[in-house]
Amino acid sequence: MNPRVSLEKLTRKPQRRTEDRAELDRLLDGQLVGTLSTVTTDGRPWAVPLLYARDGDRVLLHGSTGAGALRQVAAGSEAVFSVHSLDGLVLATSMFEHSANYRSATIRGALQTLTGDEAWDALDRLSDVLVPGRRDEVRGMLRKEVRATVALALPIADGGWILKVREGDTEEELAEDGVWTGVVPVRTTYGAPQRSPWLGDGYALPPSVRALVERSGTNE
Amino acid sequence: MNPRVSLEKLTRKPQRRTEDRAELDRLLDGQLVGTLSTVTTDGRPWAVPLLYARDGDRVLLHGSTGAGALRQVAAGSEAVFSVHSLDGLVLATSMFEHSANYRSATIRGALQTLTGDEAWDALDRLSDVLVPGRRDEVRGMLRKEVRATVALALPIADGGWILKVREGDTEEELAEDGVWTGVVPVRTTYGAPQRSPWLGDGYALPPSVRALVERSGTNE
Repeated sequence: MNPRVSLEKLTRKPQRRTEDRAELDRLLDGQLVGTLSTVTTDGRPWAVPLLYARDGDRVLLHGSTGAGALRQVAAGSEAVFSVHSLDGLVLATSMFEHSANYRSATIRGALQTLTGDEAWDALDRLSDVLVPGRRDEVRGMLRKEVRATVALALPIADGGWILKVREGDTEEELAEDGVWTGVVPVRTTYGAPQRSPWLGDGYALPPSVRALVERSGTNE
Repeated sequence: MNPRVSLEKLTRKPQRRTEDRAELDRLLDGQLVGTLSTVTTDGRPWAVPLLYARDGDRVLLHGSTGAGALRQVAAGSEAVFSVHSLDGLVLATSMFEHSANYRSATIRGALQTLTGDEAWDALDRLSDVLVPGRRDEVRGMLRKEVRATVALALPIADGGWILKVREGDTEEELAEDGVWTGVVPVRTTYGAPQRSPWLGDGYALPPSVRALVERSGTNE
């Protein structure tokens, strides 16, 4: 694929870096998983993919208190959280001009460990973003469950994030007779919900799951 | 979502860590974008999403020589390349037991910068993996285009990678009367190819694009 417009490069249209916070929020709100990168105490790179939810000006993350990995980054270390959406493949008239449409964000900051009610609220918020409405349908968190959980927040601060976007087709002036060019879109959607096999009949799809599948088209 | 089985946690079935190299390759070969994490010379975390291709026992990456970001990690620095696939949401009888099905891999090693014929071969290989067959349909790379590109390889070495998998449903013994549980699959597919608007009629879909869309179901 085209190195000039690879995912890490910022050169010319149609690839661009944008300061538009609303565009950042749209990317973050449309994805479920990002990658948390940090540096270990002995100076080595460390990364882990995590479910997340944006809550206003912060990214909420969580993990188990039993898992050492998150504990090591929980004490105010600098971290980078990366989220991307591959939106399409761009087919051009030469291999060099091939490209990908994508949106990618990196958010840099100090991780904050949340405790007490703040942790509880953050975990509820995470649930509400990941599967809206599900909390009304099942038992909520117990105190011991919250205690068994590390809840983290990464601030989305001015100057602390980078958003890159590549969109659109290849360039018309490069067109060559007989060579098909264009975009192959990439889409992520929810499939048909699979009821647990031990449930009998008479279990209608709950509202939360119905809503999830219905808004599927927006979750690209 | 359930912190006990969040993406970073390794506790009990159905989540597991596996040493199965074939399973690692299946994950890597089914995705197009991963996140490269490293440490800057002044000790800060740095991350960027990149298109990649697995080529045997290495991950191939590329970028522009004009972009400083990749240059700084190209000189043998330790890096972690993370790839994940979110395969489904697992809805349980309590919020704590909610979870996600996923596969995630982190590959740790020293980045190698490829030059000369090795760079050329790597860039061809990247193209062939990302859009198989496309190289037969358009002009290949020119020498100046290869020179304008940083080609990197990250070895997939024994002991240098971690693969985590969570699959299956919630647990039957937690079932509660009247509460729907199950899995909502997440799928990534290619959409209908969009021909560049300046092309006239008589441009049939080339074999590479037809094949891409036809094998779409496997690219989850």
